[in-house]
Amino acid sequence: MSTREDGRADNELRPIKFTRGFTSHPAGSVLVEFGNTRVMCTASVTEGVPSWRRGSGLGWLTAEYSMLPAATHERNKRESVRGKIGGRTHEISRLVGRSLRACIDLAALGENTVAIDCDVLQADGGTRTAAITGAYVALADAVTWLGAAGKLNDPQPLSCVIAAISVGVVDGRVRLDLPYEEDSRAEVDMNVVATDAGTLVEVQGTGEGATFPRRTLDAMLDVATAGIEQLVEAQREALAAPYPGVLPAASK
Amino acid sequence: MSTREDGRADNELRPIKFTRGFTSHPAGSVLVEFGNTRVMCTASVTEGVPSWRRGSGLGWLTAEYSMLPAATHERNKRESVRGKIGGRTHEISRLVGRSLRACIDLAALGENTVAIDCDVLQADGGTRTAAITGAYVALADAVTWLGAAGKLNDPQPLSCVIAAISVGVVDGRVRLDLPYEEDSRAEVDMNVVATDAGTLVEVQGTGEGATFPRRTLDAMLDVATAGIEQLVEAQREALAAPYPGVLPAASK
Amino acid sequence: MSTREDGRADNELRPIKFTRGFTSHPAGSVLVEFGNTRVMCTASVTEGVPSWRRGSGLGWLTAEYSMLPAATHERNKRESVRGKIGGRTHEISRLVGRSLRACIDLAALGENTVAIDCDVLQADGGTRTAAITGAYVALADAVTWLGAAGKLNDPQPLSCVIAAISVGVVDGRVRLDLPYEEDSRAEVDMNVVATDAGTLVEVQGTGEGATFPRRTLDAMLDVATAGIEQLVEAQREALAAPYPGVLPAASK
Amino acid sequence: MSTREDGRADNELRPIKFTRGFTSHPAGSVLVEFGNTRVMCTASVTEGVPSWRRGSGLGWLTAEYSMLPAATHERNKRESVRGKIGGRTHEISRLVGRSLRACIDLAALGENTVAIDCDVLQADGGTRTAAITGAYVALADAVTWLGAAGKLNDPQPLSCVIAAISVGVVDGRVRLDLPYEEDSRAEVDMNVVATDAGTLVEVQGTGEGATFPRRTLDAMLDVATAGIEQLVEAQREALAAPYPGVLPAASK
Amino acid sequence: MSTREDGRADNELRPIKFTRGFTSHPAGSVLVEFGNTRVMCTASVTEGVPSWRRGSGLGWLTAEYSMLPAATHERNKRESVRGKIGGRTHEISRLVGRSLRACIDLAALGENTVAIDCDVLQADGGTRTAAITGAYVALADAVTWLGAAGKLNDPQPLSCVIAAISVGVVDGRVRLDLPYEEDSRAEVDMNVVATDAGTLVEVQGTGEGATFPRRTLDAMLDVATAGIEQLVEAQREALAAPYPGVLPAASK
Amino acid sequence: MSTREDGRADNELRPIKFTRGFTSHPAGSVLVEFGNTRVMCTASVTEGVPSWRRGSGLGWLTAEYSMLPAATHERNKRESVRGKIGGRTHEISRLVGRSLRACIDLAALGENTVAIDCDVLQADGGTRTAAITGAYVALADAVTWLGAAGKLNDPQPLSCVIAAISVGVVDGRVRLDLPYEEDSRAEVDMNVVATDAGTLVEVQGTGEGATFPRRTLDAMLDVATAGIEQLVEAQREALAAPYPGVLPAASK
Repeated sequence: MSTREDGRADNELRPIKFTRGFTSHPAGSVLVEFGNTRVMCTASVTEGVPSWRRGSGLGWLTAEYSMLPAATHERNKRESVRGKIGGRTHEISRLVGRSLRACIDLAALGENTVAIDCDVLQADGGTRTAAITGAYVALADAVTWLGAAGKLNDPQPLSCVIAAISVGVVDGRVRLDLPYEEDSRAEVDMNVVATDAGTLVEVQGTGEGATFPRRTLDAMLDVATAGIEQLVEAQREALAAPYPGVLPAASK
Repeated sequence: MSTREDGRADNELRPIKFTRGFTSHPAGSVLVEFGNTRVMCTASVTEGVPSWRRGSGLGWLTAEYSMLPAATHERNKRESVRGKIGGRTHEISRLVGRSLRACIDLAALGENTVAIDCDVLQADGGTRTAAITGAYVALADAVTWLGAAGKLNDPQPLSCVIAAISVGVVDGRVRLDLPYEEDSRAEVDMNVVATDAGTLVEVQGTGEGATFPRRTLDAMLDVATAGIEQLVEAQREALAAPYPGVLPAASK
Repeated sequence: MSTREDGRADNELRPIKFTRGFTSHPAGSVLVEFGNTRVMCTASVTEGVPSWRRGSGLGWLTAEYSMLPAATHERNKRESVRGKIGGRTHEISRLVGRSLRACIDLAALGENTVAIDCDVLQADGGTRTAAITGAYVALADAVTWLGAAGKLNDPQPLSCVIAAISVGVVDGRVRLDLPYEEDSRAEVDMNVVATDAGTLVEVQGTGEGATFPRRTLDAMLDVATAGIEQLVEAQREALAAPYPGVLPAASK
Repeated sequence: MSTREDGRADNELRPIKFTRGFTSHPAGSVLVEFGNTRVMCTASVTEGVPSWRRGSGLGWLTAEYSMLPAATHERNKRESVRGKIGGRTHEISRLVGRSLRACIDLAALGENTVAIDCDVLQADGGTRTAAITGAYVALADAVTWLGAAGKLNDPQPLSCVIAAISVGVVDGRVRLDLPYEEDSRAEVDMNVVATDAGTLVEVQGTGEGATFPRRTLDAMLDVATAGIEQLVEAQREALAAPYPGVLPAASK
Repeated sequence: MSTREDGRADNELRPIKFTRGFTSHPAGSVLVEFGNTRVMCTASVTEGVPSWRRGSGLGWLTAEYSMLPAATHERNKRESVRGKIGGRTHEISRLVGRSLRACIDLAALGENTVAIDCDVLQADGGTRTAAITGAYVALADAVTWLGAAGKLNDPQPLSCVIAAISVGVVDGRVRLDLPYEEDSRAEVDMNVVATDAGTLVEVQGTGEGATFPRRTLDAMLDVATAGIEQLVEAQREALAAPYPGVLPAASK
Repeated sequence: MSTREDGRADNELRPIKFTRGFTSHPAGSVLVEFGNTRVMCTASVTEGVPSWRRGSGLGWLTAEYSMLPAATHERNKRESVRGKIGGRTHEISRLVGRSLRACIDLAALGENTVAIDCDVLQADGGTRTAAITGAYVALADAVTWLGAAGKLNDPQPLSCVIAAISVGVVDGRVRLDLPYEEDSRAEVDMNVVATDAGTLVEVQGTGEGATFPRRTLDAMLDVATAGIEQLVEAQREALAAPYPGVLPAASK
């Protein structure tokens, strides 16, 4: 029977780890690890919202994803040095933002902005799904911080938990949480973002130089959904410990 | 019974129209219309391939999507004037390129590049799906041109037909081919790219400020798949007429 | 006797055609054709004026010219992708704006801006003169729209008709309205912008790798002036039909 | 009788001065003064030509025009800091290059490039015409330098002298060589580039918020042509003195 | 007696820590900590050198410094999003590169490039000196890697150890290794880069809104020099352990 | 005994010259010459301060340094054409600004900005030190202008004189004011900015591919300090003459 290079079963996640309070300036700061993929996810709170939203009474959440130059096998050129952001970076930044906005009541934030930053320290496949999953934990900490600071109109603005996982067809088999070695030769590649209730937030499936029948889509969704359940459990476990830094005194 | 503003049934496409030979310089040039959405899709052939591909013997296909400033209800600022391409433009350009590369045998092209340009003249929802569907027709014409010019290693490099359609949940109902008025208030929004064989190339579903159960995904895929069958028929019908311009004499 | 490749007399225009209401979102939208040169000219109305003009009570008119990538014989690179606008584009955009500002009373607009966009769908010489000539028609429609919307301080803010034509010396002969084939080998090249009253707005004559005597300038102006009279007639004829879309109800 | 603020007759040039050898690194370096307008014009020689011209055996000439930030009454922002070149700068750079290419036999240069730089130290109207007139003198010095270095295929590659002047309608009168005070309120503004033989290289006339009859164009050309004759005389006088620096020993 | 907020003596370093093998793709990867300042320093090896150096037989070393958005108290905007690199980033990147090039024999590298990346994860003053000090350790690891890969012309291309420290005048007292709280109100601020032999590589002293006598410079140098001795000891201790990853088999 | 190519003693300055009133639009305009190095330094006054400083009642001083393309032996590419400012330009602009802010009481300016521009017309080493030294003279003239215009809260906002000089180790000897020929092969290179009172503003010493002992630093500082004394004398002498232009009438 064909097995995966790292010994995992086809539907098995890599070891998942969250380090809350990874840095101390932002309201939420989490190092998330999906195997060798490591992403620093922070949630910074700033007063005010973008100009097109001012006066609405609603808050906002933005997200930026970036890869450090030495995160990949071959060093990649820094986008600030190139002077422009690549298409892939743009696409993932937008995905992270959309995904997290699905779980937060922006009215509860008042006119404050939460800026999510996902910086990949080490890449080994699945950086976007690790980023979303880790960013949720950072966001949960930022919400605790906002509550302590008396800046929330509603004590619990998070309506659900958000997690994401990759799934693909490799060597003709549906496999969960692809590392770089599998991702680079997958025939089909899918990223699924979902909630703790099992509802979907975003589904992106792509044939890589191939097309795929709908039953493959179904099989991939089955595996992804089960993986997300486990991720949500790991997120909840990580968030069970108290806030990892010093909370502000209420100022409102 | 709730009906759509334009009188269509929920699973009905808008009127679809292809004008081949819309302009005469590129090898393929098609004006595609999905209702009031009008996109000029061209396929230009240039000798040579990007530097990272040189010497491989393989061809390449790139795609760029863009919105003319006056295409939308409110004039949008020109990206060349801003000095950078927005995230949405990047994302759609990449999607169009990936989708069309799924149907073409790049080895058959030799070291030639086909550059697809999709410029939206008028936007009324579904511009990316119209772009992909029209670009396929332009690509088919460019392939005919390449064949006449004796530049193909294989007489039929297109392995399938590619079409794309949007589907969403509006007013709680699954609806096909959303115009702007529906798209802007859809609860769930999905774009499906598929082949004439019914296999999937790309599936992108997004909850807009909401999450959705898997059965909604299934219902949307059912409707989209049926829509794509009709699009493929329309593409075939459009391509039944002879090449709309002057073909080159073989030079190889 | 030497004749032109397309059979025209030296002082003859190519077939001229205006399609008003070419698209439906902007207040004015015209497809202009000078032979095979086809330019989509739109006039969009937005409230407000640039910051340096605010509080003056005066309106403003801006113009942007651009070439679609596949408009030329060889595909040209998209300026948004290069990240900067080329010198030629800048120069023509400025020319279009200056030319149209010569015919409009900006005080009559109040603090509103008309944004002219000239996007070349197919280029065969004379794109800038077609752009100016077509943009005048789009502007006239936008003025009708503004009047219907009750946004004009003066019911007729257009003081004259503006048209433009190219003229050059090819094969030693002064010729009107050069197509690409002639333009690319012209010894002298001139663009003339003038009014229905025969007065001049802009004259730009250039020796292409050659210099020219003043009597050549005079001969070129004679031919251009006669050509502009015919263009003005065609513009008037096109504008004789009613406004091609739905006019707004007055809101002022 | 209405006279000009600086006491000149309507058809009189401002004091013209050329300082050759203004700086010592470039092959040609001239400070040109048209009254208070002062432009540093340099002609630098570099081996090789742009890639699109390689292997042709022909040389090339490029030109760049720029305004120092403190050259104008109000300091203007540096284009390098803005990160892009404005439309006016682009337009003038192209004009300077085209004008000087009209007098030089590029075949005589071999595959060498002459880069003209015109940097305005102080602006008081007519900077583009001073730039062209001064750049010709710098180019003549660079040609002497190239000859001494044995790099010319033909000992005299300059076929004519090039000079340029502005002319306009101010207070209803046709006036030559407008300073800023007149230029800013001119009704019509024209720049003429011509040769010592009286033939024209470039004519650019613009109505500033007004249109003008053809007889005004004729009157302006009369005055400009006479002015250019005087400029050519001043250029010849300046070039009568020997090369102002150290010439290279022939190396070919 | 006035003491420092964190209880240190004026000439005392913050706790210094090096984590080698912090990530696994680059040849050298070190997390350096100066108190709460944490910088990820990597040294990546690529074949080839910049074009201006090709054919010289010499290697090259470049360096880039960057601050993650959430590294500071207030989130700072990402330079890739702004589209340009700020002056401070440029300045520090150049300083890091110059400093490390002082210790390495570029001829020994052959035509290979070492790219140093210093990404600040958390900033609390002294980020540039921590970056240099940590980058030396990453460089030493990369040199070990290069040696194992058989890519060195000389087995020991490092001629000295490089370390750097900040020193300043705060509250009228000369203090070593300033945290943000002291740095932001220092009257004089100096960065010293030196070797294990006590010789200087770079000295940059600045009065912040004040000037300072030469005896202050001398006092600051005394304190800095002693601090650097301790840093060098810490670097040596960190490097005493074996290479933290898998070394390549020699390939030359 | 080894002497310098230009015959100077090791501790001797090149001929220093200041031409005040070099151009007439800015409040201060000085051409400074250190031997063949020539920099045009202007100080322009504008109302208002950057947004982050508004409402503070304090003024601001900014500085920009730039090299004209033909200032160097080999023409260098214009930064406006590249679309970005290089690291060296950034670094020197920041140094000039910091240095001059050390001598001016920004409260005395009210909410006005002085913009310093240093444009190198000809480069022969020491451009940054010439820029600072010349810019001080331009600033002094701008302060006189501000006083005459009644815009100063304090009649004498300059607390000291600022000058700068380079010093280096060439051929094993400490030498003052290095021309390009020496600078390009110096083993150590230092720039010192100091006041007429002998206190230091900025010290930047760099080993160029070498390190240097502290006694070399001391010897360089001795030589630099003596040089600065002479520069200050030359600045005072230049400023002894009256303001070189027309002063404004007080308007406050």
